[in-house]
Amino acid sequence: MGKSVREILKKNKNFNLNGSLWIECNGQRFFGPGPVELMEKINTTGSINKAAKQMQMSYKKAWEIINMLNTNATRPLVITKAGGTSGGGSTITDEAKAIITWYRQARERFKLFLENETEKLNA
Amino acid sequence: MGKSVREILKKNKNFNLNGSLWIECNGQRFFGPGPVELMEKINTTGSINKAAKQMQMSYKKAWEIINMLNTNATRPLVITKAGGTSGGGSTITDEAKAIITWYRQARERFKLFLENETEKLNA
Repeated sequence: MGKSVREILKKNKNFNLNGSLWIECNGQRFFGPGPVELMEKINTTGSINKAAKQMQMSYKKAWEIINMLNTNATRPLVITKAGGTSGGGSTITDEAKAIITWYRQARERFKLFLENETEKLNA
Repeated sequence: MGKSVREILKKNKNFNLNGSLWIECNGQRFFGPGPVELMEKINTTGSINKAAKQMQMSYKKAWEIINMLNTNATRPLVITKAGGTSGGGSTITDEAKAIITWYRQARERFKLFLENETEKLNA
């Protein structure tokens, strides 16, 4: 053999490594790009319903994610106030913001890994 | 703030990083765990139909993957012989085996990255 992967793949096309990163709890995926995006949109819109709609996600699915997030955290990541004269609304906690920041940083380190692997692929 | 992610997550549960890895061609995912598994099962069974069934994948979907693989490679990764007295059959090429080996090695390096990130998460 002795063929490199780059020789196996067509010369005139661009290839790069990409990937996804998530936290598992007891072997089950629980925190990744989806929950991050959902929490960020709740933070922007103040509404689980609006956040879900923007992601073309069902309200039920959004709640499943939020319940899973809150179940695995010592304090809730997403807080919902009951509707009333103020109309209620949802917010994310400082803990949510901290874990989102951590995820972004891990993703940056992963990006370096992917760039390094892409270089090797094209070497 | 100053809370670490591990403090935000429940103490009595086990958390670890996991992820997925794939090659993109011109920005589109084309080679990852699915194609690897499909080619390995074609190699074992000698049949695209059997390989697809084992993966609970439609024959159509299997062919879409095979076409995409072969389109991006200088020489085909999967070869199909027409049926006849011998019944035909499909095989994967040395090039396919080489790219599968490369993927497994990249996945091993990714595993080290994930273990390192899991350590940091739990620190």
